Amino acid sequence: MKVNGKNLTTIWYESGTDKVNIIDQRLLPHNLKIISLNNLDDAIFAIKEMQVRGAPLIGVTASFGMYLASKKSSEIDFLIKSGEALKKTRPTAVNLSWAVEKIISNIKDLDPNKRKETILKLSQKIRQEDIDSCSKIGENGLQLLKEIYQKKKSTINILTHCNAGWLATVDWGTALSPIFKAKLNNIPIHVWVDETRPRNQGFNLTAWELINEDIPNSLIVDNVGGHLMQKGMVDVCITGTDRTSLNGDVCNKIGTYLKALAAHDNNIPFYVAAPISSIDFNIIDGIKNIPIEERSAEEVSSMYGLNSKGDIEKIKIIPDNAICKNYAFDVTPAKYITKIITEKKIVNPNQLSISELLK
Amino acid sequence: MKVNGKNLTTIWYESGTDKVNIIDQRLLPHNLKIISLNNLDDAIFAIKEMQVRGAPLIGVTASFGMYLASKKSSEIDFLIKSGEALKKTRPTAVNLSWAVEKIISNIKDLDPNKRKETILKLSQKIRQEDIDSCSKIGENGLQLLKEIYQKKKSTINILTHCNAGWLATVDWGTALSPIFKAKLNNIPIHVWVDETRPRNQGFNLTAWELINEDIPNSLIVDNVGGHLMQKGMVDVCITGTDRTSLNGDVCNKIGTYLKALAAHDNNIPFYVAAPISSIDFNIIDGIKNIPIEERSAEEVSSMYGLNSKGDIEKIKIIPDNAICKNYAFDVTPAKYITKIITEKKIVNPNQLSISELLK
Repeated sequence: MKVNGKNLTTIWYESGTDKVNIIDQRLLPHNLKIISLNNLDDAIFAIKEMQVRGAPLIGVTASFGMYLASKKSSEIDFLIKSGEALKKTRPTAVNLSWAVEKIISNIKDLDPNKRKETILKLSQKIRQEDIDSCSKIGENGLQLLKEIYQKKKSTINILTHCNAGWLATVDWGTALSPIFKAKLNNIPIHVWVDETRPRNQGFNLTAWELINEDIPNSLIVDNVGGHLMQKGMVDVCITGTDRTSLNGDVCNKIGTYLKALAAHDNNIPFYVAAPISSIDFNIIDGIKNIPIEERSAEEVSSMYGLNSKGDIEKIKIIPDNAICKNYAFDVTPAKYITKIITEKKIVNPNQLSISELLK
Repeated sequence: MKVNGKNLTTIWYESGTDKVNIIDQRLLPHNLKIISLNNLDDAIFAIKEMQVRGAPLIGVTASFGMYLASKKSSEIDFLIKSGEALKKTRPTAVNLSWAVEKIISNIKDLDPNKRKETILKLSQKIRQEDIDSCSKIGENGLQLLKEIYQKKKSTINILTHCNAGWLATVDWGTALSPIFKAKLNNIPIHVWVDETRPRNQGFNLTAWELINEDIPNSLIVDNVGGHLMQKGMVDVCITGTDRTSLNGDVCNKIGTYLKALAAHDNNIPFYVAAPISSIDFNIIDGIKNIPIEERSAEEVSSMYGLNSKGDIEKIKIIPDNAICKNYAFDVTPAKYITKIITEKKIVNPNQLSISELLK
């Protein structure tokens, strides 16, 4: 998608330098910095420290991480160990292990000399498939927005939480893909952007994406959505997901559950955009069985932004001796989800409908 | 309540200087600064700019504001005009107009020479009544916590939103008063403190109060409460209210509605601590008829905290060209409120039960 009028993606392989380039998303929206991943450790750091984030993108980054590992050694034990290290970087998204397993299963029986080249090809294929999937999610979601527009015949107000835009994937995004497609199809839209504390992905990333694509939007703190829905100021909610279980429970950024409750209370559709790679067909009950990552208290106790000199500065926003807890995700019960939008088709949030995606 | 081991209240009249002292709460928790209000304009500024905040405290401040006005002139027209100016500072809390009307009705037929002295006495009475009411709310709420403790027999986890502690009143607070009383009664408690964006009253004020009173607490962003309730980590929610309507709809800091929905979804009691002065007996339906204040976008787009040098600094946390919207309150439908705790008694959130408070 566009940044200052030019097309950009979140991750790409540069054959001349044999390096993998990413955007260091920690510096957005204040500073657009492209950095290179040179080895496995760089890839691990990038995922763990959230230079890259978003379930689909960390899957793609992990696959390129496997390529960077294979540049050091193509011994299978080393590659399996490297894959394990990548899988440990973040516990919640299923895409990470999905990408690593896919690569290992494809190269384990190969001649070691062919592994490096094969992993690179696979990584590039996974990257391209992510772009294609996200584009198709956009097309499928667009149909739902068209239906709303045909009824309302005026600007559609869409609420989204966190960032499930192109920055969370390679391009297009998941939850924002139908929004980008709606813009291309001249459907009038306005997006309510949840701040998404503690890391502010809504303000830092989603708002930045929408402003760059010239899509009308308003920034709100995470507390506001319920009030807007009660007052008829939201027509539809769309979020992404880090992991969806077979029964349709949706694990996503902390706070998603609260917005789904408010949507349900006000009869507003709550759609989840989910690439099939983010669906965990091995877990039936998401509330019981999806592990919830607990992250550093530092993310809650301090905040980054621009100071009066225009420099990025960190400030402390809690009293002395305060203790912070930082749960990064929550699980929204399937009963509060209206539909799940995948690249294949739109499904209902239940085992019967989701299982059909495997066919 | 205690600050660094010494007792302090939020507002008091100092006879030696004939001034009204307050804490400038905008600087908390980083800096405890006592300032004097010398005239009506100082009182208006204090309420409007939130040097003082919290429905009960702005009512008390408005009454002292009337006293400061009467030092300039005790003409009834001037006093009525001053009262109107005070009432306009904040639109949502009913306590403001309650305090102003009470003073006007008591002094309008008096000899002008006696008005100043009478207003001072009335202000001091309103202040003392606020302290007494809050203490009684604490005693009444304590009974509810005792019941929970008798069943659970281990630490009670209480979630609260915004600041309804002593800083929102003169002393004791409303939602935190039962918590302070529980501590005095050796009931083991732990408080989950919602950050309460955009102004962070939870982190800045509630956490600071609890730490000073040595009550165990954990700071969480506003998105977390639903997850905690789903996982059985919250036994009870208690919040304050800025205005409660006759049918039991509760207007309170933005985000309260979302927590009440989550409590309802997980069968957790949701109590609201409401001084009778915050109940608007003239409004039957709160959702339809309580005005919701929209505040400056600046509160959303920037954040205050301590920089690395230990100085209070403001940072900008949104992209260039972003638009923020700032709705300050929401209304929780009565059906999601378990009980309303007043200084008189605990009532049900319906017209029949709330009307009894007038008897």
